[in-house]
Amino acid sequence: MTSENLNEMFGCRLFFKCENLQKAGAFKSRGAVNTVFSLSMNETMNGVATHSSGNHAAALARAARLRNITAHIVMPENSSKVKVAAVKNYGGSITFCEPNLASRESTLKEVIAKCGALEVHPYNDLRIIAGQATAALELIEDTDSLDLILAPVGGGGLMSGTALSAHYFSPGTRVIATEPEQADDASRSFKAGKFIPSINPDTIADGLRTSLGSLTFPIVNEYVHDIVTVSEAAIIKAMKLVWERMKIIIEPSSAVPLAAILEEKIRVEGKTVGIIISGGNVDLEELPW
Amino acid sequence: MTSENLNEMFGCRLFFKCENLQKAGAFKSRGAVNTVFSLSMNETMNGVATHSSGNHAAALARAARLRNITAHIVMPENSSKVKVAAVKNYGGSITFCEPNLASRESTLKEVIAKCGALEVHPYNDLRIIAGQATAALELIEDTDSLDLILAPVGGGGLMSGTALSAHYFSPGTRVIATEPEQADDASRSFKAGKFIPSINPDTIADGLRTSLGSLTFPIVNEYVHDIVTVSEAAIIKAMKLVWERMKIIIEPSSAVPLAAILEEKIRVEGKTVGIIISGGNVDLEELPW
Repeated sequence: MTSENLNEMFGCRLFFKCENLQKAGAFKSRGAVNTVFSLSMNETMNGVATHSSGNHAAALARAARLRNITAHIVMPENSSKVKVAAVKNYGGSITFCEPNLASRESTLKEVIAKCGALEVHPYNDLRIIAGQATAALELIEDTDSLDLILAPVGGGGLMSGTALSAHYFSPGTRVIATEPEQADDASRSFKAGKFIPSINPDTIADGLRTSLGSLTFPIVNEYVHDIVTVSEAAIIKAMKLVWERMKIIIEPSSAVPLAAILEEKIRVEGKTVGIIISGGNVDLEELPW
Repeated sequence: MTSENLNEMFGCRLFFKCENLQKAGAFKSRGAVNTVFSLSMNETMNGVATHSSGNHAAALARAARLRNITAHIVMPENSSKVKVAAVKNYGGSITFCEPNLASRESTLKEVIAKCGALEVHPYNDLRIIAGQATAALELIEDTDSLDLILAPVGGGGLMSGTALSAHYFSPGTRVIATEPEQADDASRSFKAGKFIPSINPDTIADGLRTSLGSLTFPIVNEYVHDIVTVSEAAIIKAMKLVWERMKIIIEPSSAVPLAAILEEKIRVEGKTVGIIISGGNVDLEELPW
């Protein structure tokens, strides 16, 4: 999608890749489908499993249903009703756990021990990364010589795929990762040249609270050209701007790249800029304005 | 746009014509542009004028700017800030008036007396109707043999155009107008076979508070196959359903056709159904849920 209005506002040409309009409302469907459909018959025998409170849960449940296998999803008991309903809607088998990482991991272990399902990690998996890479690939195919591609970075699955697609299919394009200041593990890791995880980061961008993984950090470190961070206020402002001007619903994580433009962390005047809108799953009862 | 999710829910195939993504956020741009660009040089000399608190105001301001003429817009002083900002953004010259029809009409008369601008009525004008007709025409061109086309009816510009496009370009398609119960002048007029205006109707569907006009009533009466009415609760429910499942922002008026399906006022099982989403201009600070 494009917006004449936003182009005028920022003096550039913006091309939005709208993964909020993707199946299950987020880019996560790409990695989940790629992974589930790359499994051998044997590997699918006992289904797949993951722990997730977010978009990966619904995406994996949907991918599993498409292949007629079971998805076992461990979800924190305080997960939003909307997310739980989405997983149920796609036929996922939910096991609730306490809302902390230790409980999520131990519950997932128990589920897998019992049913023998194959774990599908939300981002630290090359098949997931390859799937997410197709969003930027399609954006590159649909546009002419982008000067920049901007995407949000959380666990780094989308960001790794985006950077790899640009590297191989549009080597002249500069790839910039964007991250909330309040969950800046990728930025700090990138600057230090070594992996520094975030501990319980607090940001409205709920998809970006995770830290990079052992597979995604090296890819981000090598193929991303820069990482910039943005304030919470800018995220909310950018989110509302897209809702108002483009009439599409994007979640806070998706607003982070535009927030970086709003805060002039990235100079875009005269440039052709691709932006990956990561998803549109928002609780409409609890908007941040 | 289509939604697998909504298709499953209603057991039919729905094709949405998304005029919320139209310039200025509503179908009104079609009629405004068609009218402004069908004027002779002489007619455009002193600009165009209208009174409107809604989407026609911004659409006319934009159309006038495209033709490098002035749009004089009379707006009630209690118009929403978003609507006023949109008109200003498109370079419209605003004169505020008291928030009632008498003041709107007398103020417009004064403005026209002073500057000699040509009045462009929001719906009771054949050029406006012809412009609005292109939405259904494009929907018909982009789909195969629609069983039904549903659209909201307010002043009847969109509805007249929709019915005429179906009549001429897809004669096998049944056209159903949908209207809020609380602003049911079109339904009552249609059933009585004579024009019965609404007086101060109270509905959340702010685009549908106007009554049919002397040109639109006869067209609706002849070319629309049926008119059904829906409750306020169903409008809000349908609006939220589209936001949640399709990730697009639609205004309450746009939700009226889907509300009619939700309330089973229209049977759609097994059918191919076109729905005109009329616009997406919503005050995000004041959502009805």
